[in-house]
Amino acid sequence: MKEIMALSTQPYKGTRDFYPEDMRLRNYMFNKWREVCESFGYEEYDGPILEQLELYTAKTSEEIVNEQSYSFTDRGDRKVIMRPEMTPTVSRMVAGRRQQLGYPLRMYSIPNCFRYERPQKGRLREFWQLNADLFGVEGIEADVEIIQLADALMKSFGAKPDSYSIRINSRKYMEELLEAQGFSKSLAPKLIALMDKADKPGFNERVRSLEPAIQERFLEFSKAVQGENKFLVDIAETSSLLLTMKKLDEIGVKTEFDPKINRGFDYYTDIVFEVFDTDEENNRSMFGGGRYDGLVGMFGVEPVPTVGFGMGDVTLENFLKSNDLVPELKPTTDLAILLIGDVFADASKLASELRAQGINVSIDATDRKLDKKIKAADKQGVVNVLFVGETELKEGQYNLKNLQTGSDEKLDAASLVAKLKV
Amino acid sequence: MKEIMALSTQPYKGTRDFYPEDMRLRNYMFNKWREVCESFGYEEYDGPILEQLELYTAKTSEEIVNEQSYSFTDRGDRKVIMRPEMTPTVSRMVAGRRQQLGYPLRMYSIPNCFRYERPQKGRLREFWQLNADLFGVEGIEADVEIIQLADALMKSFGAKPDSYSIRINSRKYMEELLEAQGFSKSLAPKLIALMDKADKPGFNERVRSLEPAIQERFLEFSKAVQGENKFLVDIAETSSLLLTMKKLDEIGVKTEFDPKINRGFDYYTDIVFEVFDTDEENNRSMFGGGRYDGLVGMFGVEPVPTVGFGMGDVTLENFLKSNDLVPELKPTTDLAILLIGDVFADASKLASELRAQGINVSIDATDRKLDKKIKAADKQGVVNVLFVGETELKEGQYNLKNLQTGSDEKLDAASLVAKLKV
Repeated sequence: MKEIMALSTQPYKGTRDFYPEDMRLRNYMFNKWREVCESFGYEEYDGPILEQLELYTAKTSEEIVNEQSYSFTDRGDRKVIMRPEMTPTVSRMVAGRRQQLGYPLRMYSIPNCFRYERPQKGRLREFWQLNADLFGVEGIEADVEIIQLADALMKSFGAKPDSYSIRINSRKYMEELLEAQGFSKSLAPKLIALMDKADKPGFNERVRSLEPAIQERFLEFSKAVQGENKFLVDIAETSSLLLTMKKLDEIGVKTEFDPKINRGFDYYTDIVFEVFDTDEENNRSMFGGGRYDGLVGMFGVEPVPTVGFGMGDVTLENFLKSNDLVPELKPTTDLAILLIGDVFADASKLASELRAQGINVSIDATDRKLDKKIKAADKQGVVNVLFVGETELKEGQYNLKNLQTGSDEKLDAASLVAKLKV
Repeated sequence: MKEIMALSTQPYKGTRDFYPEDMRLRNYMFNKWREVCESFGYEEYDGPILEQLELYTAKTSEEIVNEQSYSFTDRGDRKVIMRPEMTPTVSRMVAGRRQQLGYPLRMYSIPNCFRYERPQKGRLREFWQLNADLFGVEGIEADVEIIQLADALMKSFGAKPDSYSIRINSRKYMEELLEAQGFSKSLAPKLIALMDKADKPGFNERVRSLEPAIQERFLEFSKAVQGENKFLVDIAETSSLLLTMKKLDEIGVKTEFDPKINRGFDYYTDIVFEVFDTDEENNRSMFGGGRYDGLVGMFGVEPVPTVGFGMGDVTLENFLKSNDLVPELKPTTDLAILLIGDVFADASKLASELRAQGINVSIDATDRKLDKKIKAADKQGVVNVLFVGETELKEGQYNLKNLQTGSDEKLDAASLVAKLKV
C-alpha cells in the first residue's frame, strides 16, 4: 500500500502567498497605481496570462524567451507561454482594434508575469507589474508625459526627491553617437545592447565577443561615455533627447542623462529611461521604459507610435520598506460581533442593518469562551468588537470594546454606525 | 529566406482580452464582489497561479486533473499546474499558518483559473472566480452564513428573488438515505457522484457501470428522489440540513432541497448548494459550494472545519446581461484637455492642478485638427472635453464641452473642479 505523506504547505518556488496582511500592502500599492494612472487619463485593461509562443519569439528579449520562459505545449498541440511581460499583449490588442480605438490612447494594467529565474532579492518567478502605455503620439509630449507619470507614481508613495533618480537616454542618439565615432551602422544594435551592461560585472568579457579590430575602441568609447556628461553637450539643441529633458524640467521633473541606460528589450526605438534607487546600499534600477514605435505594426496594421513603462511590485515593495514608506494598514473588517448565547438569527439581523449602513461586520458564533473570541479577533487585527446577547438585543444597547485602546462604551445601533463610520 | 508573416491579433483560444470597456464591466463585478464580501468581514487574500501538481492530484476532481488541467514540467523538472480552482491553494495557506491565524477566519479572493475545455457559452479556458471561505466553525452558523453571502451577492447585482433559486443538499444526508435504502456504505461516494448527474443526458449509461444487481434499484431510487420532496419529510428535525434551511429562512434567505445537488469535487463532506438561473431558456446552475472539513488536515495539521463557494465571472456576466442588470459604465477619465497650439507645458500645469483636486485628466497634444481630437475623445467614451490655448491660459477661463449633451460653457479652474466633482 502507498504511504500517505502530508502535502507541503509551501508555495511553488519563487512565488508568494498573500495572506490578508500581505494583501493589504499589495492592495495599497495597486490602488495607488490605479489612482495615479487614472488621474492621468489612463484606462485599465487586461489580457490573458497565456499567449501563443510566437507572440514572444517575434520580438522580445531573447534571453527571456530562451532561458526564462514558462512555455509548454497545450493538450491541443499549441505552443503557449505564460507571459513574461505585458508589452507584446497590449501591442497585439491595440493592433486588433487599430481603427476602432481613439488616440491618444492611454492604457494601464497590473498583470502578473512569469520568469524562470533564480529567486533572489527583487526577483521572483511570479511578479506583478504596472504597465502604462500611451499610443498614437509621435511627438515628445508622449515621452514627457510617461516619464512625468513615473515620477508622479514615486511621489504618490511619499518618495523623497533625493531617494530616487530618473536616468534617461535615447537609442536613436546612441546610434548617431556610435556612427560619429566611426562604428559601422550595422553594429549599432549589438553595441547598444553591450552599453546597457557597461557597469555590470563581466562587461570586458562580453566586449571580447566583438571582432578584435574594434574591441579596444569600443572599450574606450564606453569608458569615455561613462565619465562626465560631455557627450550630452554635443547633442544638437533640437534632438528629441534634449528637448524631452528640457520639457520635463519645465514641469518640475528632474532627469539625468545616462548613456548606459539602453534597456534589455529589443523593441525600444528612441527615448529609454530607468528610475534608480539612490540609496548607496541599494543603488540599482527599479523600473523603466521608453519608446517602441514598431511593435503594433508587426500585426499587419499601420504602426502606432508608442511610449510606455513597467513598474514591478517586488522592487517597489523593497523600496517602500527600506525608505520606511509603508503606512499602517488595517483589516477591511470594521467590527466583530461576538455572540453571547444562542442569538444567531437576531444578531444576523443586527449585522445586516449595520452592513446596509456601510459597516463591515463579522460574526463569531462559535461555542468558545468570550476571551477566546476576543483573542481571535485581535489576532486578525480587527480593532472593534461588540458583545451581543439576549439582554443587549432586548435593550438595543451594545457594549463596544476597542482592542487597541482597551476602552469600552455602551451604544445603540445608530450611534455605533456614527462612531465606526468616522 | 523566411517569409515574414503578420502575427495574429487574436488571444489564445478560450481566453479573453479586456479592452477598457470590457474592463469596466469586469471591475464593476469584482468591486461588488469585494464590497459584499468585505461587508461580511471577509478579508482578501491571493496565492500563486502556478502550484505543484501534487496539490491537485491529492484531492480534487479527477476529471479536472486528468483531462482539463494545464500542467507541465518546469525547467527545474518540477511538475506544476496552472490552478483549475482555488480551494486547494487556500487550504494549503491556512494549513501553513494553522496556529497563527484567528478563527472564525473569513477569506476571499478573485483568482483566475484555467481549465482545458471546449470553449462554449458560460465556459472558457481562463475565467475568474470569486472564492469565499469560512474556516474554523463546526456549527451550521457557518453554512447559513456562506449561503446568506451567496444570496447577498446575487441581490447586490439587482437580481430579483424569482430570477434565481438556491438549491441545497447534504452529502451526509445522502449517505444516510442510501444506507436506509439498503445500499452498502462503500458504494455511497460513487452513487452520490452519479446522483449529481441524474438529470443530465447519459445518466442511464452511467448507471450501467454499476454492478448489475443494483442498477435497477438505484435507477428507481434516483427517480423517486427527483420526484416530490417526500425524502425531505423523512429527515430528522435535528439534521443539519433541515436546521440550516430553517435558520436561513429565519433571516430571509429562501432555499429548496434538491437531492440532485452533490457537486463535482470529491472534497465536500456535508452541506452542498448551488445557485440556479430560473430563466426557463437558461435554467442551469450558476455557481455553488458547501462544507469541506477534510482539506486543511491533509497538510499534516489538525483539521479545520470549512465552508465556502466559488462564483465565476463568465456565468455571472451572462446572467447580468440576460436579466438586463448591467449598468451604464463610463470611463474613469473625467476630462480630456484638447490643446490649441503649442501650450503643452502650461496645460500640463493646469492638468496637475486638476488632478490634485481629484479630477482624472488626459491631454491631447497631437498636431491634429480640433474636430479630430473631439472625435477621438468621443470614441473613448470621455464625456467632457476642455479647450486650452494661449488665450484661455492667459484669461484663466476655459471652454468646457459636454459631448453627450452638446452643451458648452466657460469656466475657471475652480468652477470646473466643482462641476466635474458632482
